[in-house]
Amino acid sequence: MTTHDDTQQKSVSEQAATASSTQGGYPTPAWRKAYHQGSRPDLRVPYREVLLSTGGTVPLYDTSGPYTDPAFEPDVRRGLPPLRDSWISQRGDVEDYHGREPRPEDDGLKHTAPRGVTLTAGASGLGNLDAVFPGRPRRPRRGREGAAVTQLAYARQGIVTPEMEFVALREGMAAETVREEIAAGRAVLPANVNHPESEPMIIGSRFLVKINANIGNSAVSSSIEEEVEKMSWATRWGADTVMDLSTGRNIHTTREWILRNSPVPIGTVPLYQALEKVDGRAEELSWDVYRDTVVEQCEQGVDYMTVHAGVLLRYVPLTARRKTGIVSRGGSIMAAWCLAHHQENFLYTHFEELCEILRAYDVTYSLGDGLRPGSIADANDEAQFAELTTLGELGRIARSHDVQVMIEGPGHVPMHKIKENMDLQKEICDDAPFYTLGPLTTDVAPGYDHITSGIGAAMIAWWGTAMLCYVTPKEHLGLPNRDDVKTGVITYKIAAHAADVAKGHPSAQAWDDALSDARFEFRWEDQFNLALDPETARDFHDETLPAAPAKTAHFCSMCGPKFCSMKISKTVMDMFAGEGAVNGDDATVVAGMKAKSEEFAATGHKVYLPVVE
Amino acid sequence: MTTHDDTQQKSVSEQAATASSTQGGYPTPAWRKAYHQGSRPDLRVPYREVLLSTGGTVPLYDTSGPYTDPAFEPDVRRGLPPLRDSWISQRGDVEDYHGREPRPEDDGLKHTAPRGVTLTAGASGLGNLDAVFPGRPRRPRRGREGAAVTQLAYARQGIVTPEMEFVALREGMAAETVREEIAAGRAVLPANVNHPESEPMIIGSRFLVKINANIGNSAVSSSIEEEVEKMSWATRWGADTVMDLSTGRNIHTTREWILRNSPVPIGTVPLYQALEKVDGRAEELSWDVYRDTVVEQCEQGVDYMTVHAGVLLRYVPLTARRKTGIVSRGGSIMAAWCLAHHQENFLYTHFEELCEILRAYDVTYSLGDGLRPGSIADANDEAQFAELTTLGELGRIARSHDVQVMIEGPGHVPMHKIKENMDLQKEICDDAPFYTLGPLTTDVAPGYDHITSGIGAAMIAWWGTAMLCYVTPKEHLGLPNRDDVKTGVITYKIAAHAADVAKGHPSAQAWDDALSDARFEFRWEDQFNLALDPETARDFHDETLPAAPAKTAHFCSMCGPKFCSMKISKTVMDMFAGEGAVNGDDATVVAGMKAKSEEFAATGHKVYLPVVE
Repeated sequence: MTTHDDTQQKSVSEQAATASSTQGGYPTPAWRKAYHQGSRPDLRVPYREVLLSTGGTVPLYDTSGPYTDPAFEPDVRRGLPPLRDSWISQRGDVEDYHGREPRPEDDGLKHTAPRGVTLTAGASGLGNLDAVFPGRPRRPRRGREGAAVTQLAYARQGIVTPEMEFVALREGMAAETVREEIAAGRAVLPANVNHPESEPMIIGSRFLVKINANIGNSAVSSSIEEEVEKMSWATRWGADTVMDLSTGRNIHTTREWILRNSPVPIGTVPLYQALEKVDGRAEELSWDVYRDTVVEQCEQGVDYMTVHAGVLLRYVPLTARRKTGIVSRGGSIMAAWCLAHHQENFLYTHFEELCEILRAYDVTYSLGDGLRPGSIADANDEAQFAELTTLGELGRIARSHDVQVMIEGPGHVPMHKIKENMDLQKEICDDAPFYTLGPLTTDVAPGYDHITSGIGAAMIAWWGTAMLCYVTPKEHLGLPNRDDVKTGVITYKIAAHAADVAKGHPSAQAWDDALSDARFEFRWEDQFNLALDPETARDFHDETLPAAPAKTAHFCSMCGPKFCSMKISKTVMDMFAGEGAVNGDDATVVAGMKAKSEEFAATGHKVYLPVVE
Repeated sequence: MTTHDDTQQKSVSEQAATASSTQGGYPTPAWRKAYHQGSRPDLRVPYREVLLSTGGTVPLYDTSGPYTDPAFEPDVRRGLPPLRDSWISQRGDVEDYHGREPRPEDDGLKHTAPRGVTLTAGASGLGNLDAVFPGRPRRPRRGREGAAVTQLAYARQGIVTPEMEFVALREGMAAETVREEIAAGRAVLPANVNHPESEPMIIGSRFLVKINANIGNSAVSSSIEEEVEKMSWATRWGADTVMDLSTGRNIHTTREWILRNSPVPIGTVPLYQALEKVDGRAEELSWDVYRDTVVEQCEQGVDYMTVHAGVLLRYVPLTARRKTGIVSRGGSIMAAWCLAHHQENFLYTHFEELCEILRAYDVTYSLGDGLRPGSIADANDEAQFAELTTLGELGRIARSHDVQVMIEGPGHVPMHKIKENMDLQKEICDDAPFYTLGPLTTDVAPGYDHITSGIGAAMIAWWGTAMLCYVTPKEHLGLPNRDDVKTGVITYKIAAHAADVAKGHPSAQAWDDALSDARFEFRWEDQFNLALDPETARDFHDETLPAAPAKTAHFCSMCGPKFCSMKISKTVMDMFAGEGAVNGDDATVVAGMKAKSEEFAATGHKVYLPVVE
């Protein structure tokens, strides 16, 4: 056992060492940060430009934030520049205020002396709760006199905010479309006024499919530094949002560091921290502890919060005959509370009060599916769909308070039951964005649940899900390390992009086309650089054909030099080109091919015997 | 560059070392080989029994052959016992004969002295073409006087062969159903009379979805030993058939070793070897060289052959305007031949002659889709579907000769175009089994094409594809090593099983249920042992919680000990159990839950404010 513990210890510190070496920079020099200039000087929308050997470029959506801009000097203690700061203040509807006093229990330090956080030995000011984060001093902001400072409220008033313009440029859509979709509740733009560092992004079925990466320490392992690094690592590979699901010590401090350094919206499940504050005893939870935690997180800048308000007392018995009961942590906590008190879920009974809090910061609801199925056997059952009905109701309430809402979905669902989830959600929840976890299409492959769920994720996204919560290979087994985070993100980028292509998103297939062109023309470097993961593509190629000339070779290791289908196929094309059948205009080509085709068809039929049968 | 070469060299020999250590045996002692006894003593159908900590067992389909039977002593030079030998000879319709004389060019040794194969230094008799394989002496067999010795012919005559009975027991289906599906051409049972070592299996949409693993050396790398090891490695993890796509030296010898040691049907693309015989010059190919190669492979025992007879001369120009032209090796070779000679594809013009050869050995056609799309842009185009029409025609011709047929399918297809492939194939090809490569649902993820294609594979299998050809992470980049083969097989087992569940195959979901029960009851060891890959599941769990007690702990590393949803959920169930709501009969349970539910519903509604909106 000592050996095992040593191994684990070593791997954690090894991870940290690798981590810092990758801080900043893209995985290939052929990726370059570029910007679309918006209508005001401070509105510059980042994207990634892939430089091709042909001299051309391919623009790709980019979530990596300032870290990949060579002009930016990253400093994890200073945090990112507050991009949206002036946009928020210029609206004139927020006030800053003293804010809630930090308390030892925010970091799980109950009546004990403050303990140093583990960020770095010798870091001054750390471990002191008055100086949770050493960066620029700030006071929390909120809507003045109960004003709704939400993107939904602005959209409904017909205002196109800089955030909406940013998103429109980012997606290649009209700003008015963005505004309309938000106003209709079909899309959300999670952007807490206290997280000005985030680059606006939109979640809705008319836009590119987004993916979320979960990170978070737990009682069992990991440190603040690791979590901050995992966040930026996840966005480097394409995570559109990150959920911090920390449950152990230093929850508050970890979150602060993540928020100040995150270019993407951050989501949380406030119930986890609330439970820590009552020492893990679900029955001791109360609306007061929960509300206090929500305010704490609103002030820090959390952009969206999972709230399990649909786990109603009367639904709990519906789970008793399930194969895997309640598998959502939040769901099971609320179920336990309901039963212990024989009272209705306090998140449900205080839902309108909660709306009033969230609208003052523009925190988006992610209405949690606490009764989601945890196995194929439990998919689409009464408990799941009963809760969905309540989530639909709550969504309408939230929007009536001008609070943005998305709806969470399963879970474990076999392929033939996935579409019903999407169809019902659309109908019951008025087309509010659906945000699903997978779903996993079989239970039999622990260790590969990024794949079992990537299948379901691609399908449900094609049918309309707006954001996919990633699943890593460690799902059900352990906490994801850096490699697992990357594998989860890449797998979900595949699912999301496959869905974008299938949905016919205007810009989606151009990426596939660029890569296929490179592949067909044996531009190996371009093929690597256009890949979701250039490092892995290049490494795999090097394993079989390491020599530099192979990077420009007109063959690949599958067939070897004299046996290559692409090479033969090119010869075919050249033959036709020689006879004027290709490289002409459309009419010439079609005519040329037709003539050739008919000529050969005649021969073919003459040679071949009549079809028997 | 030297460094690179050294690295590669080392990795190959390291692989070989690992390989031999895994020869024989399951990855966990909780898997045990078991047999269903058929109607005759020599008809014993293997399956895998997973032993649970509860004392129960779960039976699973098993493709690993005798290697995993402790009573069997593997010896790669002796080969496997010829299981079907007496079944074949007792039918009294085959004769053995002298067979084709081996020639140096069979192994790519043109007019040079025979070179030793690389199997093992000091192995006597190797490298001599008269002693290609040292095992039991055998003469090839074929149908006597042109008799059709195919399972299709027997099925049509109303005969249930031992092979069919074997398959019925293996699938848990009635033998008569097996016979009917084969007779109707909706299923194939690939079983060359010269490959008696293979354990019968069936490919058809009413049966479990099957997967194929491609192996094969090429001009660039790998040895005979590696390929034999890859074959048994692939079947160990669940490959139902293996295609040997070797293209370099020693093609004949490699194939002989693979066949004599393979418990699963072996497929090939004879065109590859034929092309080697004409030194890679497509225009020098001829029906004679091809026929000679087919006979050579029929005599060795190849169970199914990919034949690109649908690449007609008139279809070739249809590919000239494609983004990626012709990406099938076989397709491009035949296209080049057609154009060079301005003649119709000789595989098409000699198709009936080819049928006569295959029916004498019971070799199954896998009609190749030489014009399959190699990119999202080319999916479902005119060239692809024109060829499919011809494959439908050829399928009818083959069946009229009593030859079994399956149809190959794409390739690269975005999600929204997958179903059209399946629907058209069913219609055009009279429900002949469809055998697809993926399809890949996006082009942008080289290095992860097991995943881009696993998504498409699961979907198309759900819709009716009978066998899925795996894609490894190395697709488009290099040759798969052992790890890649395993990853490809596991990914495709996931896709196939997800499809079995979605199709409602009678036995499929029982596996998911058993694993989910183990998960919910914190039977960690059972969860690992029921996984597709117990090693990986266990290793991942150990990374976070290595200590032995964690294997029986009632929590996992995701939440830690005090925060576990499953634990809370159990408490919920117990509460209801205490009040008689569960553990009763159905009526009691429903009544108990209903009472509780109503009681709480009333309270819930009283507490909560009326729904707004």
